[in-house]
Amino acid sequence: MSNSGLAGGVVTVDSMGRALAAARAAAGRGEVPVGALVLDAGGRILAIRGNEVEARCDAAAHAELLAMREAAGRLGDARLTGCTVVVTLEPCPMCAAAMVHFRVRRVVFGAYDPKGGGVEHGPRIFEQPRCLHRPEVVGGVRAGESAVLLRGFFGGLRGR
Amino acid sequence: MSNSGLAGGVVTVDSMGRALAAARAAAGRGEVPVGALVLDAGGRILAIRGNEVEARCDAAAHAELLAMREAAGRLGDARLTGCTVVVTLEPCPMCAAAMVHFRVRRVVFGAYDPKGGGVEHGPRIFEQPRCLHRPEVVGGVRAGESAVLLRGFFGGLRGR
Repeated sequence: MSNSGLAGGVVTVDSMGRALAAARAAAGRGEVPVGALVLDAGGRILAIRGNEVEARCDAAAHAELLAMREAAGRLGDARLTGCTVVVTLEPCPMCAAAMVHFRVRRVVFGAYDPKGGGVEHGPRIFEQPRCLHRPEVVGGVRAGESAVLLRGFFGGLRGR
Repeated sequence: MSNSGLAGGVVTVDSMGRALAAARAAAGRGEVPVGALVLDAGGRILAIRGNEVEARCDAAAHAELLAMREAAGRLGDARLTGCTVVVTLEPCPMCAAAMVHFRVRRVVFGAYDPKGGGVEHGPRIFEQPRCLHRPEVVGGVRAGESAVLLRGFFGGLRGR
């Protein structure tokens, strides 16, 4: 457990910096470079994870879903009430819908994802009329750094 | 590995019967009674699971997501190409979106879920313009039996 850099309820760049570091580490393992962490209501980090789709042969092993599952396990509660998820890329519909199930209080994300995103794009999960829980959303935090990582990764793949 | 009862590409009631048995077992553990299995292209069962949200303190531990993760792990491939998911309840948006990531070929479900479903209700994940993969969908298979299980479970909870 370490302090995340929360001050007065505002998630500082430090949290996103840690998520970006997890994204870089994921790229180093051949994974799509996305990183995520979960902060509890007091700003302590409960879990930090990067994508592990390849390593686990698990298409659902997205960074933010892994981090939420780990954080909930640590709390011994299937709900992450009061918690914040910080993730370097706009969550996909699967991860956004998982945030509803986990009752996440707030989502802070980096780069917007017009093709695969599910928060500000596509099905806009939190805006669905039947959505049972709507986390607060802050998008675009250090988006440029996340986008550079993703472009570098997919550019490298195309070059292979 | 056992034969699932696939005949001529048609999923028979036997597969749904096994999923219903997994749902009943879940209810016995105090979980929402939903069960699911994954069949490979040849009709062999790769994984059968029930909900484990309470046992794992994991809001994402829905039966079909657990079964897909287990099946992919067995295949050593993050994609379930050619596979069929049989599940007793219409998948929620999280699980439907996961089916896209796993590239599931076909989804067969039992009861329709107007409140929480994400295939024929809510965001209708497979019908989203940006959806990258659209599984074939067969809904309403032995829906009455699934609905009776769910009503019994939630009725029991209300009676406590």
